Amino acid sequence: MDMHELTRELKVQNDSKIVMLVADGLGGLPQQPGGLTELETAKTPNLDQLAKQGVCGGSIPVKPGISPGSGPGHLGLFGYDPIKYTIGRGALEATGIGFELGDKDVAIRCNFCTLDDEGRITDRRAGRIPTEESAPLAFKLREVAIDGIEVFVEPVKEHRFVVVLRGEGLGGNVADTDPQATGVLRLPPRATEPGSQKTAQVAEEFLRQAGELLAGQPKANGLTMRGFSAKPDLPSYEEVYGLRAAAVAVYPMYKGLAQLVGMDVVGEAQTLAEQVEIIRQHWDDYDFFFVHFKYTDSTGEDGDFASKVAKTEEFDAEIVNIMELKPTVTIVTGDHSTPAMLASHSWHPVPTLLVADYCRTDPCQSFGEAECLRGGLGQFEAKYLMPLALANAGRIGKYGA
Amino acid sequence: MDMHELTRELKVQNDSKIVMLVADGLGGLPQQPGGLTELETAKTPNLDQLAKQGVCGGSIPVKPGISPGSGPGHLGLFGYDPIKYTIGRGALEATGIGFELGDKDVAIRCNFCTLDDEGRITDRRAGRIPTEESAPLAFKLREVAIDGIEVFVEPVKEHRFVVVLRGEGLGGNVADTDPQATGVLRLPPRATEPGSQKTAQVAEEFLRQAGELLAGQPKANGLTMRGFSAKPDLPSYEEVYGLRAAAVAVYPMYKGLAQLVGMDVVGEAQTLAEQVEIIRQHWDDYDFFFVHFKYTDSTGEDGDFASKVAKTEEFDAEIVNIMELKPTVTIVTGDHSTPAMLASHSWHPVPTLLVADYCRTDPCQSFGEAECLRGGLGQFEAKYLMPLALANAGRIGKYGA
Repeated sequence: MDMHELTRELKVQNDSKIVMLVADGLGGLPQQPGGLTELETAKTPNLDQLAKQGVCGGSIPVKPGISPGSGPGHLGLFGYDPIKYTIGRGALEATGIGFELGDKDVAIRCNFCTLDDEGRITDRRAGRIPTEESAPLAFKLREVAIDGIEVFVEPVKEHRFVVVLRGEGLGGNVADTDPQATGVLRLPPRATEPGSQKTAQVAEEFLRQAGELLAGQPKANGLTMRGFSAKPDLPSYEEVYGLRAAAVAVYPMYKGLAQLVGMDVVGEAQTLAEQVEIIRQHWDDYDFFFVHFKYTDSTGEDGDFASKVAKTEEFDAEIVNIMELKPTVTIVTGDHSTPAMLASHSWHPVPTLLVADYCRTDPCQSFGEAECLRGGLGQFEAKYLMPLALANAGRIGKYGA
Repeated sequence: MDMHELTRELKVQNDSKIVMLVADGLGGLPQQPGGLTELETAKTPNLDQLAKQGVCGGSIPVKPGISPGSGPGHLGLFGYDPIKYTIGRGALEATGIGFELGDKDVAIRCNFCTLDDEGRITDRRAGRIPTEESAPLAFKLREVAIDGIEVFVEPVKEHRFVVVLRGEGLGGNVADTDPQATGVLRLPPRATEPGSQKTAQVAEEFLRQAGELLAGQPKANGLTMRGFSAKPDLPSYEEVYGLRAAAVAVYPMYKGLAQLVGMDVVGEAQTLAEQVEIIRQHWDDYDFFFVHFKYTDSTGEDGDFASKVAKTEEFDAEIVNIMELKPTVTIVTGDHSTPAMLASHSWHPVPTLLVADYCRTDPCQSFGEAECLRGGLGQFEAKYLMPLALANAGRIGKYGA
């Protein structure tokens, strides 16, 4: 059962405003047994005030024990069951560099590689060729011309780039051509279902022409293709929730993820203060604002406890300006935990708070992992946060008579 | 969605060790309103220490309000959705007496009964014939010979025994022959799907020959067959988790349940101390150890509060020796609650703790039902314990990018 079957049927229109603040990787771990987490260490008077006013809990991004990537992490927060809905690796990579996928597109993660005279792979990452050398080669591959197909080639970083094939009748189900080994030939693109046979043929032709264009390159004289994927088929926020939704993010990945569920990406903010200003400007145009703050994750990924604390405090400081807009429902959460101690995404529940006039508050006095254990939201799967937001906004009617 | 689809895809190998200690029927109830449960009454300094170090919560064996038998109780703990995966009654009975089922087997719970001259059942349990009288009769039934079929007959207790039919093309879907009434004829074995017609015919022939062998017996001159079932089709621990798993149990039922999910049964321990010694001996051979302690359940089933407290203390005392082995992840839980007050399995959440370096501890200061309510695991379905164990052991990769 998908919650969307309920929200689609029960959704109600009104003038409420919902703001969802996502501090990426928000949850953490203490540095030593009995210690405090990053969030508990940080001085967060504004978040603490919201925790007192509102209702808190722990958001389980996917299921207990599962550490999500950014894709499933955000799908969950957006209310899309992250097990039912998946975003292919190619589609996510394209999304991450700001490429807006269309319905006729197949996106592919590509790696430059080094081939010997007989076409065997000698280095699967082309000696980790630096971006300043690889980007011009990616641009050169734009010369590939295939009948009836529009070809896009976009550099990413080092040996990585993205190819998007656009045309009629392209399916996204083609097996990787990377053999995951050296000393062997690249695998041919092979369709794993009949609807993707044309894609496999087009990819084959791309590889042939690319081979000619890269011939003679010292490092990057070949390429492999992985994660073929069509644009994921996600119903829109408008359709499932009746919400005109805006995404206010700095990084392309999060703008792209929001776009995949039909949010408008608004503004070109580079800082959280600018993001808040953009919300203010667009306050009347939208019902829902997704605000993404990256740095609680990136500092966690760096394993830098102190910096994560500092970034959490920066995040806290801006909260006041958002609350000035008087949202009907304000949510603060993260797409997953990124404890500095692990320097990676983790499975731990994410401290979450929701403030609204009718939220039924709880005893929580501050915003942190331990305090959230006493919270009225309990522990819940992230996908239930949107229905809770709608309910608190008066945007969802009674189920059954 | 089955968690195994995730764990199968995301599993990672490393050198970690996971120990799951199952104190059967662990959860309980106070003897009087406002009192303490068995576990809360027991002096459990070692478990309390683990509760301080680790993260606690309440395990819901199947779903809220559902009291499980040993089969579903353990399947849940092993991470097999106990609603999706079921073990037929015959298969469970065979498992409980240590009969290792094979893929060509159909197991059947049989009852000796008393028939009148016209074949009508006069006593469905053959006057609860004592085991010393019934066991020789079960052995006698081993004389039954059916072409192409291997027949096993094993006594259980009083009027109960098990028949296992082994052969090609035997399905497990045959209706019970016990009419659940006296004064009527036994029902014929009837296949409920085409693939089990041969089984029904073989069972018919078994009943015919058995009738001849039992003719003239004063009490047990007939039998009924119930719970026909093939070996349940459970994926193995190795396949779904990548774990080499060992079961260290005293009672055949729990060895058998572990075997059904592909664990190796190691040792012939008769006491918990011997179980710990066996773990020590096999420490390098396995990644996962399931340790079963029966007596918290059997004392609960007896309605004996004081004995359950004493057995809980015995259990606690051995914990030290297990912790000396320094497992990466230690779990203490039960397959269900068995409150002495109810003298039966119950639906109440089972106190559960998990200790690992990255478990994100919580405020719990001791191990007991009330304290676990403050725990960081919250209340969760037992089937999520294995994914949590894998996550804490670093044995599960990131879901999605």
